Formats: sequence, structure tokens, C-alpha cells
Amino acid sequence: MKKFEEKTISSETLYKGKIINLQVDEVELPDGNTSKRELIKHPGAVAVIALTDEGKIVMVEQYRKALEKSIIEIPAGKLEAGEEPSVTAKRELEEETGYGCKQLDHIISFYTSPGFADELVHIYFAKGLYVLENAKAADEDEFVELIEITIEEAIQLMKKQRIYDAKTAYAIQYLQLQAGQGGK
Amino acid sequence: MKKFEEKTISSETLYKGKIINLQVDEVELPDGNTSKRELIKHPGAVAVIALTDEGKIVMVEQYRKALEKSIIEIPAGKLEAGEEPSVTAKRELEEETGYGCKQLDHIISFYTSPGFADELVHIYFAKGLYVLENAKAADEDEFVELIEITIEEAIQLMKKQRIYDAKTAYAIQYLQLQAGQGGK
Repeated sequence: MKKFEEKTISSETLYKGKIINLQVDEVELPDGNTSKRELIKHPGAVAVIALTDEGKIVMVEQYRKALEKSIIEIPAGKLEAGEEPSVTAKRELEEETGYGCKQLDHIISFYTSPGFADELVHIYFAKGLYVLENAKAADEDEFVELIEITIEEAIQLMKKQRIYDAKTAYAIQYLQLQAGQGGK
Repeated sequence: MKKFEEKTISSETLYKGKIINLQVDEVELPDGNTSKRELIKHPGAVAVIALTDEGKIVMVEQYRKALEKSIIEIPAGKLEAGEEPSVTAKRELEEETGYGCKQLDHIISFYTSPGFADELVHIYFAKGLYVLENAKAADEDEFVELIEITIEEAIQLMKKQRIYDAKTAYAIQYLQLQAGQGGK
């Protein structure tokens, strides 16, 4: 859909990074005026809702430099160029948690920050987890700790702002809905 | 929490924009090695789940230059410097939808893209909506169209990827849980 389309008058890439690019566009608005749009180009990412046979959610604690603190999230990672998201999802689950899975279903994809970024996150649901004997190592600049918790514990960690990001908040609600915990 | 802290060796702001800044940090990792972190600094934002007396969700359709398409979202906007989020939420609801509200409750805040950005979105729930007689205009470079839909219509629009962002996906699940629609 192109409703209220903002036509590009000029576009300049001001920074090309390892993960993100910064692009500033001059646009023509629907009323004929012009404005500037600051845009972050991102390769996209995956995140995995993974449940153990005991019904615990598999999470990882990780330092996030953007926030200057560590938070607890569902396993996630960015897409490599040309990589099929389900392949990334399987790899990130393996690298970050040491779990393989027998079943991996795509449940939803959404943009995280449509106001300034094109990052699209694909959310998968992994079932039939098993411990890998020779788990691949995570990226060399990535340090994570595995945490397995119940839905109730996850809700408490959200209240304490230890779980504090959109995809993980979505994942917890998804599991609450699956478990029929509506109407509370 | 500072687990796996990445200490800043150097930090450089490469772009200062109208809304976002780009900062690139050189960091010392927990194992003593170094890496580079590309970080977007954002003032934060609010989003409002607003229900009409008929139980419809108030949404807006808006062109998103980052995505090069228009999508349907719950009303939202970025924080002005020093502004209390609840004030922003009330203002954005009024400007984007023409509705005032008798009650506004904070329900959750979360980071949208912790891997590269510090954008924190505060989600509010607005009840007791009434049509404002003299609604303030939206920002001069903002064009939105008001849409009022049921939860079921919202779920269909998600399947069609017309609703396609994290905060709105969260909002729909929130309303499903409130309505006791779990266990489906």
C-alpha cells in the first residue's frame, strides 16, 4: 500500500556499517511540501520461542551496549546475506542455547521500529528440543548465558524490567494465549 | 545488571539528526578482546491502545518511509525532550485520532531493537474516549488516517501484513488476553 506516499527527492547513505546503514532521504509529502527522513537499514533478524519438554521457556541473558545493561531475551540473531530466516533461527538457537529442535514453525514477522528502521524480525516456535552434543560456538564477540524459566517467572522478570524488549514481551503473551491464560 | 559488560574504549557520534543519532563505540569484551558496536540513540516513544465504547480498537494508517509502504498501527509518537510519557501519549492520541480519553493507564514499556537501538516504547491503555471538538493538528509532516476495527479484524489485517509492527502485534495480543481469548 502506498497511501500518503512520500516520494524520494534525494537519498544519501551517510554511514555503511557492519550491521546497519544510515540513510537520509529528502521526501515530497502528500501536500507537496518537503521533509527529511532519517532511516536505518538493517538486514532483518530472527527470534525463537523455544519450549523444553518440561514446559520452560529457553532464554538468554546478554549485554546490550545500546542499553548499557544486560537483559534477558528469547534467542535471536540477525540474518546473514541471502540466508533463509528458518536457517538463521535454527543456527541461532543452536549457537546461543546448545539446543537443536525437531520442529520449527514460523508464527509471525513484524517490523520493530517502523518510524526509523526497516528491521523485520521473524518469530519462530521451536518444539522437540534436544541437547546437541557438539554445539557450535556463538559469534566470537557474543557472550550469552542460558536461562530456562516458566511463563510465570517470565512475567515476574518483565515486572522487574529484566525482560525488557518487544519480541520477548510478544513471546510471553503468545505463550499465555496458547496456554489459555486469557481473561486475567 | 552489568553481566558480560562491554566496557567503552572510545565512543564517537557520527551523525546527529532531527530524531536519531548514530554512535559507534569501540568496546572491550568480557574475554579482553575488542569489538565495534553501532548504536542508534533515540528519544523514546509512546503508543496507545485505545478502545471505543463499541469495543473497537483505534488505529491509524500511515506511510512509513523506512518501509516504503503504509501500514496500520496503534497511535504512537516520539517523546519530546523532558516530556512525561503520559503527556506524550495523551497528545499523540488527540492529534492522530481526534479522541480525548477519561482514563490513561501505563501497561508496559519495552525496547524495540535492543541489538542496535535504545528506543524505549511506553505502552498506554486509553479508556473513556470522547470526540474532541477542537482537535489539535498532527505534526505538519505527518499524514494519518483513522481506522476503527474489531480484534478479529485486526487479526485478519495481521495475516495480510497490513498490520505489521511489534507494538501493534503486542497490543492485539494484549486485548486478546484481556478478552479471555486464550487457548485458541
